Amino acid sequence: MARVSQAHLDARRQQIITGARRCFTRNGFHATSMQDVFKETDLSAGAVYRYFGSKEELIQAVAVEAFTSMREAFAGATRDTPTRPLDEVLSGVLSRVLEEQAHRAGTESTGAFAKLILQVWGESLRNEPLAITLRQGYEDMHVVWSELVRTYQRAGRLPADVTTDHVVRTLMALAQGFIVQQALFGDASSEILRNGLHTLMTANADVQ
Amino acid sequence: MARVSQAHLDARRQQIITGARRCFTRNGFHATSMQDVFKETDLSAGAVYRYFGSKEELIQAVAVEAFTSMREAFAGATRDTPTRPLDEVLSGVLSRVLEEQAHRAGTESTGAFAKLILQVWGESLRNEPLAITLRQGYEDMHVVWSELVRTYQRAGRLPADVTTDHVVRTLMALAQGFIVQQALFGDASSEILRNGLHTLMTANADVQ
Repeated sequence: MARVSQAHLDARRQQIITGARRCFTRNGFHATSMQDVFKETDLSAGAVYRYFGSKEELIQAVAVEAFTSMREAFAGATRDTPTRPLDEVLSGVLSRVLEEQAHRAGTESTGAFAKLILQVWGESLRNEPLAITLRQGYEDMHVVWSELVRTYQRAGRLPADVTTDHVVRTLMALAQGFIVQQALFGDASSEILRNGLHTLMTANADVQ
Repeated sequence: MARVSQAHLDARRQQIITGARRCFTRNGFHATSMQDVFKETDLSAGAVYRYFGSKEELIQAVAVEAFTSMREAFAGATRDTPTRPLDEVLSGVLSRVLEEQAHRAGTESTGAFAKLILQVWGESLRNEPLAITLRQGYEDMHVVWSELVRTYQRAGRLPADVTTDHVVRTLMALAQGFIVQQALFGDASSEILRNGLHTLMTANADVQ
């Protein structure tokens, strides 16, 4: 057997993940078979199984990539924009990540990608390795978002005397809820999130 | 055949929905069979099928009940508490509904009920009647939440010159995101939502 370079192995692995993401996004996780992935990637069963033992392993690899992409986008936001309004940063990063992931899945519809995320969440309820991957992904994300929130706290744009974790969890909930709305209704633009969050952040919360 | 009263028919229907909700919450939608529902309700196949033709119809009935419960809770909040802080109202109603639904599903774990909601969302992606039920449920909810947000706008606690819909969609996203976190991590207390939202609503959003 010919010796293959690590670069070749990595490229092949990536090719399979990309094909699987396209299949899952187009037809849903449940309706996709390993045969569909062979066809989409133009690879033999043997070539695919060398890297991924099952459909479950493929959805896990797709989920890891989505997390990595989202974490990098938020880490970038922390570095570059400590003074932009938080609503703008959150909605901007979220829409950029969803568009990028949709594009990589071969569709222009961010709703289609949101549907895939919803399926990953559902699948994690009965797939323990995927559940562990999700929890790890959210923990990593939590670290990056905490840094972002602390930047706003230090700049006096968020109160300093509150639990950073609660703000982070609330912002993560906003992002997750918008993914739910995109998946279910298909029309949840990040503009809505930006305006809604901006309104809440300029509210006169302590008026009696 | 003996004549049966409408009250009897309604009670029987309710008994089946309750049993199905318990099964779905305990074992998940996919792992539940109609046989499990017969056993849980102590009814024959014929008795159950008289009301519900399939497991899909049962999950739909469970979803409708969850929506009704949530809509009523928010309608109550609109009537009773026009002046309580919005973060308190949202987190209070959400935790009350989740606890009530969990209790009706025979568990004290709101995480278990959140998992059921996640499964309903996922199932709606490939079950068009359920998708229609969900969309209708969210439209009804939107009406009630809009009334709540307008109450705060009239009271000067939210800006009057913003699109009510954007605030409503953002608050709905918050609630949906917390359901996701409860389902995936099991530890998302409504206290976190209340504190996080309160912090955002007292933020100094327009500081430059």
